[in-house]
Amino acid sequence: MDLHGAFHVYDTTLRDGAQQEGLNLSVADKLSIARQIDGLGVGYIEGGWPGANPKDTEFFRRAVDELDLRHARLAAFGATRRAGLVAADDPQVAALRDSGAGVVTLVAKSHDRHVELALRTTLEENLAMVRDTIAHLRAEGQQVFLDAEHFFDGYRANRDYALEVLRTAFEAGAEVAALCDTNGGMLPPWVADVVHDVVESTGGRVGIHCHNDTGCAVANSLAAIDAGATHVQGTVNGYGERTGNADLVTVVANLELKRERPVLPAGLLSEATRIAHAVAEVTNIAPAARQPYVGTSAFAHKAGLHASAIKVDPDLYQHMDPLGVGNDMRLLVSDMAGRATIELKGRELGFDLSGDSPEAKQLLTRITDRVKALESRGYTFEAADASFELLLAEEVEGERPAYVEVESWRVITETQSGPGLEALSEATVKLRAQGVRYVVTGEGNGPVNALDQALRSAIGQAYPEVAKLELVDYKVRILDQGHGTDAITRVLIETSDGAGTWVTVGVGHNVIEASWEALLDALTFGLRRHHR
Amino acid sequence: MDLHGAFHVYDTTLRDGAQQEGLNLSVADKLSIARQIDGLGVGYIEGGWPGANPKDTEFFRRAVDELDLRHARLAAFGATRRAGLVAADDPQVAALRDSGAGVVTLVAKSHDRHVELALRTTLEENLAMVRDTIAHLRAEGQQVFLDAEHFFDGYRANRDYALEVLRTAFEAGAEVAALCDTNGGMLPPWVADVVHDVVESTGGRVGIHCHNDTGCAVANSLAAIDAGATHVQGTVNGYGERTGNADLVTVVANLELKRERPVLPAGLLSEATRIAHAVAEVTNIAPAARQPYVGTSAFAHKAGLHASAIKVDPDLYQHMDPLGVGNDMRLLVSDMAGRATIELKGRELGFDLSGDSPEAKQLLTRITDRVKALESRGYTFEAADASFELLLAEEVEGERPAYVEVESWRVITETQSGPGLEALSEATVKLRAQGVRYVVTGEGNGPVNALDQALRSAIGQAYPEVAKLELVDYKVRILDQGHGTDAITRVLIETSDGAGTWVTVGVGHNVIEASWEALLDALTFGLRRHHR
Repeated sequence: MDLHGAFHVYDTTLRDGAQQEGLNLSVADKLSIARQIDGLGVGYIEGGWPGANPKDTEFFRRAVDELDLRHARLAAFGATRRAGLVAADDPQVAALRDSGAGVVTLVAKSHDRHVELALRTTLEENLAMVRDTIAHLRAEGQQVFLDAEHFFDGYRANRDYALEVLRTAFEAGAEVAALCDTNGGMLPPWVADVVHDVVESTGGRVGIHCHNDTGCAVANSLAAIDAGATHVQGTVNGYGERTGNADLVTVVANLELKRERPVLPAGLLSEATRIAHAVAEVTNIAPAARQPYVGTSAFAHKAGLHASAIKVDPDLYQHMDPLGVGNDMRLLVSDMAGRATIELKGRELGFDLSGDSPEAKQLLTRITDRVKALESRGYTFEAADASFELLLAEEVEGERPAYVEVESWRVITETQSGPGLEALSEATVKLRAQGVRYVVTGEGNGPVNALDQALRSAIGQAYPEVAKLELVDYKVRILDQGHGTDAITRVLIETSDGAGTWVTVGVGHNVIEASWEALLDALTFGLRRHHR
Repeated sequence: MDLHGAFHVYDTTLRDGAQQEGLNLSVADKLSIARQIDGLGVGYIEGGWPGANPKDTEFFRRAVDELDLRHARLAAFGATRRAGLVAADDPQVAALRDSGAGVVTLVAKSHDRHVELALRTTLEENLAMVRDTIAHLRAEGQQVFLDAEHFFDGYRANRDYALEVLRTAFEAGAEVAALCDTNGGMLPPWVADVVHDVVESTGGRVGIHCHNDTGCAVANSLAAIDAGATHVQGTVNGYGERTGNADLVTVVANLELKRERPVLPAGLLSEATRIAHAVAEVTNIAPAARQPYVGTSAFAHKAGLHASAIKVDPDLYQHMDPLGVGNDMRLLVSDMAGRATIELKGRELGFDLSGDSPEAKQLLTRITDRVKALESRGYTFEAADASFELLLAEEVEGERPAYVEVESWRVITETQSGPGLEALSEATVKLRAQGVRYVVTGEGNGPVNALDQALRSAIGQAYPEVAKLELVDYKVRILDQGHGTDAITRVLIETSDGAGTWVTVGVGHNVIEASWEALLDALTFGLRRHHR
């Protein structure tokens, strides 16, 4: 497949995606993300704006040496020459020309009011800036794309001028003009109409760049492609300013799986879930569970009612095979959990509960009843796979996995004397592990934190491997609203050992006790995982 | 505007939205969400499935008495009669008929394979089930809608049968047949084609119900409406199974603001941001910053480059005026609330901050700066009006309202000896009120409960009127994900005095200290209210 030929998948995570509020990437982050995105098989990766800031300049310097891209070409983003300058003399243009990327994506104004208000130059000079800069870069051997900024709004305001900018770019040697819905206000039928007109009026190659302000970034991109665009820009996980850019993985999955239009090298789309999550690890933004195709909930079913039908024909309940994007069907053990759900869920976790013997049937019934009873008391196993696995292990193996025997614990939280001082918590835990009794005290700036410190330092003396377990998330939910501080509390704890994460649950009237239960399960599961 | 006439906006947050992984609503939650959604001016609110579980049954029982909906009609969701039964004798149908809602939305299979595999009945019996159930409910005075489950897949598999189900429903008296993309795999052009065909072939009134599995739920809904659908279903914040349902606020905003098609009572769309966030507080799911229209980032701009152009003409950089949905343009230099928001909120609470004098301007600036500083530390005043009012009172009146002077407090939580015994908490509070020093100890089955007991019995000796104050809700959210039990905690407490309720907020590393802050504010606000 020619990724640089008839259709371009163009990633701008590192440039436009990085505009997202709260997203801050180091040069090392950007290199790491570029490698991940290359693994998806896109044709182009826009790395940033060399010359605009030291970080992007360093990125391109290092990228040329260190990035060994297998599929993608690197693109440098930048602006047309400044008004009144010769393109070859403009240092900003020189930085683009000399970035080493080989591809330059030039942003240009195509909305008359923006030319006047933001560029503060004349409409004619803007055209000259587009023409000269492209001609210079082409003469220097660069592949050149144009990003026509605010194109759709500009087209509405002054169609002739907007089209004139594109014609100028094509004549000067731009290979593609990407129409940008910079403010993100478009809907699919409008995008389709404009792209149709541009393709017809200019005869040039059209690309599309959408934002999600109307919730239609993906549909707008598809509408443009249907109307003749052959170059699509987007970002991994839909990162971007305001509501984000078009989610490139969703766009590509729709093209490949729904439209039977291959745009990536064969087989690489099945890396999408892994890559989307790996990029989220680098950005340190928790991935959205509901994200299309790659979200952890994207193929999760509250099975109950239809579990038996799902067993017979899963395709009745999913719009595609999740393996196509490297995701997995998950059955949520929830309120409505029936035997069939538990059986399927058990299989996922490596427990065969499908036997036909009376013992096997009795076991399945016992587990189902216990799950129902626990859920009616406020437990949820939908989110807490690790606690569910411990429960299954207990029922199947005859006893609950346990590495310690807890005697008692206590936590004290109190104000400190002195203005402005925060309260402090201190926990004492007494337990036995491998025949030895431990009495350990931990301090923390909260009661659960103190308890966690005490518990892991007690267990850590018998099992040093708990040192690598880290609590990555702690959630509290008050069930049974309307009872104020006397309500039932549910705590969910997510733990990581570097290689994977798991979630445990604890429930009780006392938030500290519920937290204790989830903490202990978390460490037990981690030790079990380690010793397997 | 006739919300129950030519166009229906139909909310299913409480039923289909509640299918979302990790979302678990109490009856009180559901009542509170229904009130919020009614404030948006939708025509219908689907409350759940009466008879299917005790929670939904109780919801309808209480809704009929307690919900005083201004705009919406309540709808009960449920299934057609069981195979082989007479509709009037089916207890599930009876529960729908008797729910008190007045509107029934019946889910029916329209995909032949699902009839056989999931319902395990014949295609003919399925038609009879649709016909009988609708006829019975209509004869009993109910307004009836049909949810045609898996319609789009069913249409592909067996168009004739799928259409036959709809015709049967219309003939029996269904007012609308909502076509459900239950598995969520559709794209806009396909939805448009099918809706066109259905409208033409059946002549009946068509609705649309989309899921976001291709990232096109909003665009699919709009495509259906363009093709003739006059009833649209969705959920607040796009809650729902897997990738979620169509985000109803985005759909409605697109219709009203982009298509100039009013579908809500005039002016109510400007409540959308507030309502979306209030619902998120109840579900305890952090709102997505990038959510179209209502997200906190939706109108946030990295200003720098174009700040002056933005000042001259903000419309060049935003696709609409954010006030239209009750949101705000933000320039990402300073993070949070702007002066205009504070001024508006102040007015709501009875503080006039609009003066033109230098003192008045200075006051507004001081309050805005303080709110910004507090919000950057994790406070939220959007939900905690009572804490915000105390802050305003402090700034306007010169000192913070206070009825007691707290010296110190301490809470101990520990395991009890004896198997099966829950942990116990004991709190000691030392404070002065009306010149007297009180040292009081309280017990509870959780640390915050113990602290609440101690605090109110200490204050209660000086101010007996605190006896009628009741804590009705307590919520904890961990901010700053990725720091485990060491993160920043935000506590929201809702308190009632029988005549009204108010919410206070506390923030800190220590969940107990954050709770203390919110508790103290809650009682202070209650006393201030009483003494006014």
